[in-house]
Amino acid sequence: MKEAPHDADSVNARLLVQAGFINQLAAGIYTYLPLGLRVLTKIKTIIREEMQAVGGQEILMPALIPKAPWEATKRWDAIDVLFKLKGAGDKDFALGPTHEEVVTPLVQQYVKSYKDLPVSVYQIQDKFRNEPRAKSGLLRGREFAMKDMYSFHASLADLEQYYDRVKQQYLSAFARCGLDAIVTEASGGVFSKYSHEYQVATTSGEDIIYQCGQCRWAVNREIAEVKDGDACHRCGKGVVREVKAIEVGNIFKLSTRFADDFGFHVALEDGSAGKVWMGCYGFGPSRVMGSIIEVHHDDAGMRWPKSVAPYHVHLVSLSHKDESVKNQIDEAAQELHDALEAAGVEVVWDDREDVRAGEKFADADLIGIPLRLVVSEKTLSEGAAEWKERHETEARLVKLEDVLQETKEWLAAPERLTSHG
Amino acid sequence: MKEAPHDADSVNARLLVQAGFINQLAAGIYTYLPLGLRVLTKIKTIIREEMQAVGGQEILMPALIPKAPWEATKRWDAIDVLFKLKGAGDKDFALGPTHEEVVTPLVQQYVKSYKDLPVSVYQIQDKFRNEPRAKSGLLRGREFAMKDMYSFHASLADLEQYYDRVKQQYLSAFARCGLDAIVTEASGGVFSKYSHEYQVATTSGEDIIYQCGQCRWAVNREIAEVKDGDACHRCGKGVVREVKAIEVGNIFKLSTRFADDFGFHVALEDGSAGKVWMGCYGFGPSRVMGSIIEVHHDDAGMRWPKSVAPYHVHLVSLSHKDESVKNQIDEAAQELHDALEAAGVEVVWDDREDVRAGEKFADADLIGIPLRLVVSEKTLSEGAAEWKERHETEARLVKLEDVLQETKEWLAAPERLTSHG
Repeated sequence: MKEAPHDADSVNARLLVQAGFINQLAAGIYTYLPLGLRVLTKIKTIIREEMQAVGGQEILMPALIPKAPWEATKRWDAIDVLFKLKGAGDKDFALGPTHEEVVTPLVQQYVKSYKDLPVSVYQIQDKFRNEPRAKSGLLRGREFAMKDMYSFHASLADLEQYYDRVKQQYLSAFARCGLDAIVTEASGGVFSKYSHEYQVATTSGEDIIYQCGQCRWAVNREIAEVKDGDACHRCGKGVVREVKAIEVGNIFKLSTRFADDFGFHVALEDGSAGKVWMGCYGFGPSRVMGSIIEVHHDDAGMRWPKSVAPYHVHLVSLSHKDESVKNQIDEAAQELHDALEAAGVEVVWDDREDVRAGEKFADADLIGIPLRLVVSEKTLSEGAAEWKERHETEARLVKLEDVLQETKEWLAAPERLTSHG
Repeated sequence: MKEAPHDADSVNARLLVQAGFINQLAAGIYTYLPLGLRVLTKIKTIIREEMQAVGGQEILMPALIPKAPWEATKRWDAIDVLFKLKGAGDKDFALGPTHEEVVTPLVQQYVKSYKDLPVSVYQIQDKFRNEPRAKSGLLRGREFAMKDMYSFHASLADLEQYYDRVKQQYLSAFARCGLDAIVTEASGGVFSKYSHEYQVATTSGEDIIYQCGQCRWAVNREIAEVKDGDACHRCGKGVVREVKAIEVGNIFKLSTRFADDFGFHVALEDGSAGKVWMGCYGFGPSRVMGSIIEVHHDDAGMRWPKSVAPYHVHLVSLSHKDESVKNQIDEAAQELHDALEAAGVEVVWDDREDVRAGEKFADADLIGIPLRLVVSEKTLSEGAAEWKERHETEARLVKLEDVLQETKEWLAAPERLTSHG
């Protein structure tokens, strides 16, 4: 779109809408357009791989959940953002904002003995929250993507061991998405001292956390017993600073709360009925997508990490009024495009003929694909393409015959993004 | 599960639930368990590839749709299966059973000129229908997977050309899923003489179609002007027979109906406002999954085509009371497993120790993975594994060193399934 949406209340909404990644249907409800869906899919693939690495088995639960299990857990009235609706025969349903009410009786049907534990299942699915103040683009939606994993254990010790393993793996998931997530102690509810949030520092964040500059220990203000400038309780060396941040994930020890509600026990070695301990692990792919932009952008637009960019290379060919020059440019760009794609490099090619160079460059900056390659009369006179990485200010010429190899090396190299949010 | 569910009203529900592919949460509402989700994902991948082959661009629209666009098309009250709900601020929403109301105003925002057409967008998303008689497992659900594509054209001629192209491509999509779909003329609604359904012949089908044995022309009974035994109107050579069938897809020419409702026009070459012609193309991945089982099963269980089977190979190792023999068996099975997986063959390995051979074989037949390989003391005494394809009655021995190569050749060979439903 030529203009940024005038009602955008956040950087991610403004840039993602203007660049055609998402389109708003209603407050907190978005369509993912082709570029945006590519990013979302890549984030989902990353979290899927990370959950498989901790032995999670992927399933897919329904969004429509009958009332009965919500009554069993006494959450039908307790969850204020529950979307409720009537089905045929006047039956009550809720749209799932979380799935303990489905997954607990589900696993109960298959797990009978302590020998069947531990089990960990996850899904990547759209969640619904009847959010009165949906806002901030993809950060607080009413329909949004979620990866929710639930683990089941025969003992608290086993839950704690697995919880720590997932806690660690989550850092890898966020890092692969280009986010430097801070593990932050948060309220653990009734059954556990703490839960853990994954917070990404950004001035646009709505959460306040306190973090030690030395040991990186952090705590959410909601439960903090420290204030800005205090000495760190944990390491005793650093100073605790107030940081604005966005929560991009959270993990909880649920203890036996949900298993107890459903009478889910397992047969122990001596034949008696043992309790079942649960953990749950949330990660929001759409919120991660919005957070990446809050952190990685500049005045000209978005700056996607290579790992989740909709394409690796933004190829721009500049048209020319002389037909034979134009044909040379088109041919060179086509060759480059085909060679890169054949090597598995994802290329989007701006071959529009009626658009000025300046507008094409502005669009490329807005869309924020990490590497821009330009083919024009000027670059071809040097037998080259112009190479410019999105986070750099200077462009340089790379000989056409070297572009493929240099691109492959660039793609394999570690990310060099720094936060600007 | 040891026993088939007593309340299953269809073959697909009985077998998919018993074998642990799906789990019923409520009437017409299912969880996909790991095996079932693998099948569903493969079907989605096939239809995604086929839609990309006709230039479809993938997007993802929301399930929550505000009331306003439904009023614009006068379908808020007309669609009797619309799930309706209230959001914050007492706002009305529906859960999308179809997405013309979202996609038409969406594309309208980006398409301004006839030069921007044609455009074709699709999504693979969960749909909702407040179905009073949800039944037949995955065949008639209240929450179900759908691929819906919508195409936009500057002329009827362009729509018709594209429609024919998609009509053809759909046959490839169904064939790749192991379904022999019959293109069937059906009611076209107000704006078009016919729509086209894709019907799969099976005795459990609820639709009645008439099909010519010679030219394969078919028509749904709802609009048929022929009866069983009539001469074919189309080719004049064959005889028309009544066939029970399941509808697995349908395509419609929508004419300008929805574009008109939203005032969606494009600027023509002479500057005047031109009409926009639409087509829509539905394909139900979950219904396809159920239909595959209705067609491909026998008394012992399911028989998945290689293309959508949850795994290619069901490896069974039989335990032995002698520890050293047991170790030999485990080692041989592990080697086979690793060699196959390294070659990209998907293997599920039944290494349960406390389960009899007969039970393992019965489970393998039920689950229906196309190739079963057994490693036991008996097969190892011949330096071999037992090879049995699901649709064959006889097993044979294959030397361990030949299994990998034979499996690769088998996987690359055309499908040899025949219908038994």
